Amino acid sequence: MTSRPAVIVIDAARPRLVADFWRAVLGWEVVESDADGISIAPGDGSWPGIDMFQVPEGKSIKNRLHLDLRADGSSTEDELQRLLNLGARRVDVGQGPEVSWVVLADPEGNEFCLLSRTVQEMSR
Amino acid sequence: MTSRPAVIVIDAARPRLVADFWRAVLGWEVVESDADGISIAPGDGSWPGIDMFQVPEGKSIKNRLHLDLRADGSSTEDELQRLLNLGARRVDVGQGPEVSWVVLADPEGNEFCLLSRTVQEMSR
Repeated sequence: MTSRPAVIVIDAARPRLVADFWRAVLGWEVVESDADGISIAPGDGSWPGIDMFQVPEGKSIKNRLHLDLRADGSSTEDELQRLLNLGARRVDVGQGPEVSWVVLADPEGNEFCLLSRTVQEMSR
Repeated sequence: MTSRPAVIVIDAARPRLVADFWRAVLGWEVVESDADGISIAPGDGSWPGIDMFQVPEGKSIKNRLHLDLRADGSSTEDELQRLLNLGARRVDVGQGPEVSWVVLADPEGNEFCLLSRTVQEMSR
């Protein structure tokens, strides 16, 4: 008897904008879309997916939850450039110059990190 | 070339308190613990794990990201009772009486939802 994480929910003033970004970042697909928001998930149906949930308010302060990502199938440098091209921007949350990860934000300002080691480097 | 979610990071004023809660909720294990925080992960090593990251500030407003959980191996009613016994509390984020999920908060007030259908009901 436990609980299992099924979905990571991101409140969004513009769910489509946020969903398009994360879908491109993760290579996932839209699995549901209605007035409440948009759900995206990996092609293999594994959990957790991500729901963009429509809310009226915009983001105001640094999020207390965020995602850490790893480049999958490319170098971290190449993936960073791809994320920036998709609309991610570098943000300063006081992380200092010495950390090994890059702090970024999605189109509505939700912070996330790109970690220094790739998926492939972690599995060696 | 994509990114993969490796970790869900929860800022925590008291990482041990928050980690103990989520470890019990999910049935996961502590895989790392240092001055920066505590990492928990499923026993099978699958991603994403959850890191409790030490921060000085407490939670102030409703989180813009949260987790939706499903009961795994028991009924949703039984799992709700277990979560409440572990220290979850019911919170009102304006969800109204008609929603099918239960809105809860962890010991530092981080909102999460227990969805109405269990893992087993979703896989039928």
